[in-house]
Amino acid sequence: MTASNKQAVKAYLLNLQDKICQVLAAVDGKETFVEDSWQRPEGGGGRSRVLTNGAVIEKGGVNFSHVHGSSMPASATAHRPELAGRSFEAMGVSLVIHPNNPHVPTSHANVRFFIAEKEGAEPVWWFGGGYDLTPYYGNDEDCRHWHNTAKAACAPFGEDKYPRYKKWCDEYFYLKHRDEPRGVGGLFFDDLNELGFDQSFAFMQAVGDSYTQAYVPIVERRKDEPYNQAQRDFQLYRRGRYVEFNLVYDRGTLFGLQTGGRTESILMSLPPLVRWEYDWQPQPNTPEARLYEHYLQPQDWAE
Amino acid sequence: MTASNKQAVKAYLLNLQDKICQVLAAVDGKETFVEDSWQRPEGGGGRSRVLTNGAVIEKGGVNFSHVHGSSMPASATAHRPELAGRSFEAMGVSLVIHPNNPHVPTSHANVRFFIAEKEGAEPVWWFGGGYDLTPYYGNDEDCRHWHNTAKAACAPFGEDKYPRYKKWCDEYFYLKHRDEPRGVGGLFFDDLNELGFDQSFAFMQAVGDSYTQAYVPIVERRKDEPYNQAQRDFQLYRRGRYVEFNLVYDRGTLFGLQTGGRTESILMSLPPLVRWEYDWQPQPNTPEARLYEHYLQPQDWAE
Repeated sequence: MTASNKQAVKAYLLNLQDKICQVLAAVDGKETFVEDSWQRPEGGGGRSRVLTNGAVIEKGGVNFSHVHGSSMPASATAHRPELAGRSFEAMGVSLVIHPNNPHVPTSHANVRFFIAEKEGAEPVWWFGGGYDLTPYYGNDEDCRHWHNTAKAACAPFGEDKYPRYKKWCDEYFYLKHRDEPRGVGGLFFDDLNELGFDQSFAFMQAVGDSYTQAYVPIVERRKDEPYNQAQRDFQLYRRGRYVEFNLVYDRGTLFGLQTGGRTESILMSLPPLVRWEYDWQPQPNTPEARLYEHYLQPQDWAE
Repeated sequence: MTASNKQAVKAYLLNLQDKICQVLAAVDGKETFVEDSWQRPEGGGGRSRVLTNGAVIEKGGVNFSHVHGSSMPASATAHRPELAGRSFEAMGVSLVIHPNNPHVPTSHANVRFFIAEKEGAEPVWWFGGGYDLTPYYGNDEDCRHWHNTAKAACAPFGEDKYPRYKKWCDEYFYLKHRDEPRGVGGLFFDDLNELGFDQSFAFMQAVGDSYTQAYVPIVERRKDEPYNQAQRDFQLYRRGRYVEFNLVYDRGTLFGLQTGGRTESILMSLPPLVRWEYDWQPQPNTPEARLYEHYLQPQDWAE
């Protein structure tokens, strides 16, 4: 792990943020991303970009951050207690896109690089990331495209990668108190260093680069589908699950809040408008019931 | 701690739920509370009551629950590690009222009784509870009435009670990641047993019984004030803070979710409609700015 390795990852991440914002703004066609640069008093900072009230995107946030600190936060050492007390450096791009149209799924992507250091010891580093899709009114075609793109991105790195990270994604994006997955999944990986730096970095790039290929065709296919108020209401209701997951379970959110990250950038992921309704249940044999019965059941979407 | 003590607390709590629902339904005038009784597979159950789309109350939930289990949950032993491994029994009434009109504050109240038992040892028991007020457009008169009522309820139990539990409330209902209190506070107490059973129980009753006296006059004064869409939007935006507090910090919510409580009853506290807006700030010298500058600054409201 050299300084030039870190620089290479950082340059990639900044460029990835640029590219994703360009592509998504072009898809939206009406609004563009507005940028806020910020400094973290304890070290580091970030570049937040938000698009709001677009033609397609109701709220989308694409955040780059690079933070460092003298002591690993609890959320990062919970499953790696041997790293407690090390200094850390974390950089990543994280994004969530909430579309207007309930026929367009919400998507989330993240790629990150983490280094834990201690004087007199080798640095410990790893990559993490992935992307997952959260439909309101699902389509098998979309789910297959999403997972096929993820699988193709993983393929050059070995046949085990897609099934392993697909399963991890299903396990991670799961609301225990609802006994419900957040969506139809995708990829989730963490602690990746066993391929060595070059290949691990290449894998993270393959994931980062394939996100727009996975998402944009779905957006293009669904963005002009007509919808009514009941469908909009269902979307707002289901967005509540997104809030519940992010605030109760999401490690990245907890990491950000615990490390004194910039709250507005961390909570950029929350939807613009959300409903909660006591004990709501879908009527049998409706498209809403189909979300629960078909799409929110983990399954093999890739071919 | 005898079986008849437990029965007395339970009878009080069930009656309190009845009385509060009657009073609030009368204030609303249009809708009534709908009841769901539920069983918890691991032991116990509850009686949830929800009023939705009322004339005054947009969503209000008043929940009674009585649960027991063979091992204390982590959220309850975090600050009392000596109780880990004991069986537990918990009963309480918890409520949150979200009004339609942004001039009417949201209110929350809770009273609870907890018993931790182990064979061959004395049972450990305590009472807890309190109530707190969350205005959108505050009024000094309302804050004074709320806190004066709380202070009067505490007075028979000693002069130290109100200041101590008022301060605890300010400390508890605090969003660290926003550096912001949830509202204008009220009372919060926990671990109360030092008065002995009879007086501790009496204190909990004084708190429970005074909630409607504290809240209803405020609702009556404000419920017909006209408001516009911008004020409604501000209310929906501020409701986001309520969600953030309840899902990230609230011990009662975590306790419920960790003990396999009924999710719909626990999350009944979440507002019916909520907005998040990236990096929103109030304009200077507006009623919205006054919420932050005046009402969300802990202060001595009681006379």
